[in-house]
Amino acid sequence: MMSDVTLISIKEEILSENRELAGELRGKLNQEGVFLVNLMSSPGSGKTSLIVQTLRRLQDSYRIAVIEGDVDSAVDAERVAREGVPAVQLKTGGSCHLTAAMVEKGLEALALESIDLLFLENIGNLICPVGSDTGAHLNLAILSVPEGDDKPLKYPRIFQTADAFIVNKTDVLDYFDFDVEVFRNRLKRLNPGAPIFEVSCKTGEGIDGWCEWLQDRVEAGAIGQG
Amino acid sequence: MMSDVTLISIKEEILSENRELAGELRGKLNQEGVFLVNLMSSPGSGKTSLIVQTLRRLQDSYRIAVIEGDVDSAVDAERVAREGVPAVQLKTGGSCHLTAAMVEKGLEALALESIDLLFLENIGNLICPVGSDTGAHLNLAILSVPEGDDKPLKYPRIFQTADAFIVNKTDVLDYFDFDVEVFRNRLKRLNPGAPIFEVSCKTGEGIDGWCEWLQDRVEAGAIGQG
Repeated sequence: MMSDVTLISIKEEILSENRELAGELRGKLNQEGVFLVNLMSSPGSGKTSLIVQTLRRLQDSYRIAVIEGDVDSAVDAERVAREGVPAVQLKTGGSCHLTAAMVEKGLEALALESIDLLFLENIGNLICPVGSDTGAHLNLAILSVPEGDDKPLKYPRIFQTADAFIVNKTDVLDYFDFDVEVFRNRLKRLNPGAPIFEVSCKTGEGIDGWCEWLQDRVEAGAIGQG
Repeated sequence: MMSDVTLISIKEEILSENRELAGELRGKLNQEGVFLVNLMSSPGSGKTSLIVQTLRRLQDSYRIAVIEGDVDSAVDAERVAREGVPAVQLKTGGSCHLTAAMVEKGLEALALESIDLLFLENIGNLICPVGSDTGAHLNLAILSVPEGDDKPLKYPRIFQTADAFIVNKTDVLDYFDFDVEVFRNRLKRLNPGAPIFEVSCKTGEGIDGWCEWLQDRVEAGAIGQG
């Protein structure tokens, strides 16, 4: 029978090793001039759709590539590759989030010197990816309207720690009990400074505003803490 | 630096301890004549809504209670309690799934001798709850239409292992690219025998069929493997 103390120390060791490697990756990305965006959300919130919409608008300004993370299948990478950008699919097997070591494998498969902006689609999961630094400069969380405006109450950590937020699927606001103002207030209590972009990846509404903000961040070369 | 072998053996030890405790809980529930249903899904797929719809229909036939699992907040337990059934809220802090030890705490807070049917709402997560036996007799997975019909490709394990499936939010099928037949075929390849119920917890459509099937399972006192 393991004691709790042993388990905690192992978890901390794994997390601290991950943080160290993530820091190295960020250093390497800085050197190569690559801005890495980590996208986190529940399954089906629209991570891939947001990537597709974003790269269609920014492809003329930046050399973009994508690393897709999934437990299984390569459908997301295939979808992104059809847009004409380099796409790598990471299959985690059973793992519930991407680690820096997995991201490192993804980076090895890309020609970093030919990339300005790199999207990393994390595993669909509102909990586990949060504590695991990927080396990203920007951590983006997506919540979609059908999931409900109560999610900041139930899963506070991702809402406390992400740098920016997307509310996706605003085209179906009429069909769901999602109050955008209630959500904004709940989020504000957890993360006062973070911007929130209301978008529909289906109709394209609101995507321009998000892309302009992202472009400012890329231009500033702002380096987050991951 | 920990070796992989050590990590795996610890994980197996935790899982085997969990399985042992889950078996004990199931034995206790059998003795008390309590049928335990474990509900798993992504955040916002409709676990609480399904519980509410189900208990409204079966409350006259059975003495029902609910254990709600969330990382934080008690909104779900409060919502269920308003229906007039005993409700316990488990807050896991950071944990991404319910363990048998957490369920045991929930059971201690209930008068099992006065319960026939007990719902356990797991943490909103399509990955982590799958391997962790809760002591349940029936493991139910819910997928909602807005999440997309591709989820069995990306998160195969929950679709391989659950005993029955709910497709929720069928009232918005017209607004999303969700092909029910495609989903049924994908699921059939992973889990040929499992029944699939198409429901809308909003309109109530399809709930009766699910409740009849559940009632048969409770009557048969069928004991799954958790």
